[in-house]
Amino acid sequence: MQIDVQLIPSLSNSKLPQDRIVVVIDVLRATSVMVQALSQGASEIIPVATVEEAFQMAKVFPRESILLGGEREGQKIPGFDLGNSPKEYLEEKVRGKKLILTTTNGTKAFQLVPPEKEILVGSFFNIGAVTKRCLESEKDIFIFLSGNEGSFSLEDTLCAGMLITRITKEKEKSFSVTDSSLCAQIVFQRYENHLLEAFKQSHHGSELILQGFEDDLTDCAQIDITHIVPLFKDGVIKIPNRPPFPEGNKE
Amino acid sequence: MQIDVQLIPSLSNSKLPQDRIVVVIDVLRATSVMVQALSQGASEIIPVATVEEAFQMAKVFPRESILLGGEREGQKIPGFDLGNSPKEYLEEKVRGKKLILTTTNGTKAFQLVPPEKEILVGSFFNIGAVTKRCLESEKDIFIFLSGNEGSFSLEDTLCAGMLITRITKEKEKSFSVTDSSLCAQIVFQRYENHLLEAFKQSHHGSELILQGFEDDLTDCAQIDITHIVPLFKDGVIKIPNRPPFPEGNKE
Repeated sequence: MQIDVQLIPSLSNSKLPQDRIVVVIDVLRATSVMVQALSQGASEIIPVATVEEAFQMAKVFPRESILLGGEREGQKIPGFDLGNSPKEYLEEKVRGKKLILTTTNGTKAFQLVPPEKEILVGSFFNIGAVTKRCLESEKDIFIFLSGNEGSFSLEDTLCAGMLITRITKEKEKSFSVTDSSLCAQIVFQRYENHLLEAFKQSHHGSELILQGFEDDLTDCAQIDITHIVPLFKDGVIKIPNRPPFPEGNKE
Repeated sequence: MQIDVQLIPSLSNSKLPQDRIVVVIDVLRATSVMVQALSQGASEIIPVATVEEAFQMAKVFPRESILLGGEREGQKIPGFDLGNSPKEYLEEKVRGKKLILTTTNGTKAFQLVPPEKEILVGSFFNIGAVTKRCLESEKDIFIFLSGNEGSFSLEDTLCAGMLITRITKEKEKSFSVTDSSLCAQIVFQRYENHLLEAFKQSHHGSELILQGFEDDLTDCAQIDITHIVPLFKDGVIKIPNRPPFPEGNKE
């Protein structure tokens, strides 16, 4: 099994992954919000690139069945129901709802990532579950980082590094890691017991603190708080094989 | 002063540097060869992207005044004078000669890098001299890594990390480092006293070993063996203000 990481959200110069399992990561905060919302009972998430698309998409469904969520420049978008802080996505608000989400980096990543069969949504919240799924699949693994406005992001690389470190600890399998995977592991080793320090040193983390979202950094650094592994398919993110609302249980 | 690193050789999603000093690095082996050849008395280097261009360019000058150098798949190109090992570029061969060079990654980087006023050629060989020049310029610094066939390269990132670490040690100046600069420094901290270990772990280093060039890894890991700082301008790399051959001395 080969493990590769796309450190910058561009596929222009990269070999396209073929029949690999893909993991998309945007720790601060899009994929953390996605995992949180689905774990709290949201039925599905439609990631869109622009605010206009979000409003257009909202018209397709009965208003009471959907929530509009996301941010621009860190802040909740006027006319939206929710911002981009995981703590806003609680069961009483999201249960059974379809979430239309647009964020600066994370939701765009789902437009850039190649249309593979299995595209998973990863974050620190569900990193153990994503590790397990990757190990079960036996396929090559391609980790796609959302970055920060097209640039390299320390916190996403750190999360990729933890994922790779956990996967490669599996003694019974043999792995080949690319230079970028090795780099992500080195970043993880540096911050292993200090995730929050990395978040604060990162460009995006510093911006969030200035915008008043320091609590989100602490929230997004929580590890293994859910076992769900959301799947992105045909433009929609959901938990595969989960019974539909109201039978679905919080996970 | 801001210090940024382009970890992958693509400018597609990056903010273009404006009036920054740019440093191009391809440790294994193009920029190491360039620094070596100029330090041994080559008059100038013309980096070209393809073998065809190299042969075309060679026709422009008297044959005895030029050398054709470079590699494809690591090996010397048929009809060329020299390969891509620094140790081939000795004074008795290169003194006073114009070197037309084409390599898989390094010479292409000079096509991708934006046309800034000051584009320097960096390697471990001249890292102290490049550090000094960056500090003197007082400009923002943009380090452009050649990578490995469009992908992230561990050894180039390591060299960038050493350069940034040396620059930011200058106590009298204040620096802001981007996430990618921070990452490069972390990679450097990991391998600080083990450059060769990193080269051997890297994808490109492993390939060179398989191709029979293990000695080149040891050679390219030499630090501060020359004080020259080659400059890329108008398609040509040379040492600014060096007296022309035969007055020029080996540096």
